[in-house]
This record gives sequence, structure tokens and C-alpha cells, in this order.
Amino acid sequence: MNEKFMRKAIELSIANVKNNTGGPFGAVIVRNGEIIATGANSVTNKNDPTAHAEVEAIRNACQILGTFQLDDCEIYTSCEPCPMCLGAIYWSRPKAVYYGNTKKDAAKINFDDQFIYDELDLPLTQRNLKMTQLLPEEAIEAFELWKNSMEKVEY
Amino acid sequence: MNEKFMRKAIELSIANVKNNTGGPFGAVIVRNGEIIATGANSVTNKNDPTAHAEVEAIRNACQILGTFQLDDCEIYTSCEPCPMCLGAIYWSRPKAVYYGNTKKDAAKINFDDQFIYDELDLPLTQRNLKMTQLLPEEAIEAFELWKNSMEKVEY
Repeated sequence: MNEKFMRKAIELSIANVKNNTGGPFGAVIVRNGEIIATGANSVTNKNDPTAHAEVEAIRNACQILGTFQLDDCEIYTSCEPCPMCLGAIYWSRPKAVYYGNTKKDAAKINFDDQFIYDELDLPLTQRNLKMTQLLPEEAIEAFELWKNSMEKVEY
Repeated sequence: MNEKFMRKAIELSIANVKNNTGGPFGAVIVRNGEIIATGANSVTNKNDPTAHAEVEAIRNACQILGTFQLDDCEIYTSCEPCPMCLGAIYWSRPKAVYYGNTKKDAAKINFDDQFIYDELDLPLTQRNLKMTQLLPEEAIEAFELWKNSMEKVEY
């Protein structure tokens, strides 16, 4: 059963290369033994650097289910997720992830996300990407409003 | 100048709470001293767990500029980005990030992303989220096709 879903993710990753619609990555979201939604890498096709297969599949599944959480779902992805996709996966809270290729396999064909893991582990001031704090005394207002809001939809 | 852009991001974060359209987060993308695109947290409003302010702003900027890279751009965000958003930022390659609130401020109002940083630092087998490899010998086919493709659009 698991293998059937992984084969579908792999099929999407292969079709994406053959159709020249994006990178070699596919993903499917499964609930109760059924595929709810699929996604394929669409970064270049959609001009969207966030359109990795897992993000696409998560967004599609949430639209179909009318929810922002995938508690009962499993994600099958043709490759170990990058830090962005892992973040998206944690926020969507699926119960399990299955992957095919590893990030080492991906690095061998120039999809190397190790620099992101390395950057995340550094204090902000030591990162290659320059990150500067500005106006914290004004920014906090939104948080105070949120804390005191009676109408907010928590997530 | 920098403060003007941060004030816009903060304004979006405040409006988002007042309008009850999502969490207290806003972001703007700036190029050559001009705001190209904006974003506000829309997770609950759009049923999209990836619709954080930074991701929304990056996607909007890429649509407007017709590109999947934001090399010449700066990102102003009302709060220090979560790991998903940092991943999206690294993939879109802006030249600098400015932020207002810190992740500690966010944790105080129950937006705590430390568990994601902790998980990313663990080997796959030790994470709370169960991650299992399946069918690597079949998954690798897409990577071989990509490696040998003459038509691929690299990113």
C-alpha cells in the first residue's frame, strides 16, 4: 500500500522531467488509504520559488479538504524534503512522511540544500544572509493586539 | 528609508489582526527603493498552512516580476522568519532581510517555531515526525533523467 503511494510520487517526479514542467520532484498526500492531492515541483513553470512538490501537494490537499491542517494525512515525496518543505510539513502537521531519494542524492544533481541547514544553525548575526532588526518597539503592537483579540482564529 | 518599508510591513501586520484576516504578520519586498509586493499571513483565511507573510510576499513579487529569483530585492518582515519562511527566503535569494519582532516575542503569544529548529537538527530517525525511506531504487530514475536532460530549466 505504502509502495503504491510512493510509486505515484515517483511517477509525478519522472513526468515532471519528461514534460519539462519543473525539477525532478513529486509528492502525494494520502488520507484513509486514498490519495487526496498531488504536487510536482513547479518553481520555473509558475515562477514561484516556494512551489516545491511538497508545498504544492500540501496547498492542494488543504484546498480540497477545506482545512489548514493535515492531521490524519501522510505525505509521500519522491525526495527527502528541504528545510522550507519540512517547515511547511511541520506547520501542516501530517502524521508521517515517506521519502524516496535522500538529500545526498539531490546534492549530486546540484539540488543542494545543506547551505540552508548550515545557515539555520548560525546565530542571525553570523549568517551569510544579512538579517537586521528594525523598529521592534513599533512591531510589537500587532502582537499585543493579537494577544488581546477576542475574535482571532488561532492556528 | 529602511524604516519606511518596515513601517509598511508593521502596518500590514496590524491590519491583519484588526481585519481578522490572519495572524499578526506582514511583509514587503523592495527593489531599487520601491515596494514591489506585499504579503500578510493568510493561513486561516486561505486554508493554506504555507501562507505566511513572507511566503505570500515572495510569491506575489515573483508573479509581478515574472521571475523565480529575487536577487536585487530586500525583504522587510514584521517578525523574524520561521524555518519554512527562511527556506523560502534562501531559495528566492534576496540580498537582505529586515525584521521587527523576534522569534522570542512570537513564542510569547504562542507562535513558537523552536520545535521545528529542534527537529531539523535531529537525524531523521530521531525526529518526532516519523520519516521513512521507501523505494529509493525506483525514485532515483527521475534524478537520472534530470541529469541527462538537455532541455531542463535549472534553478
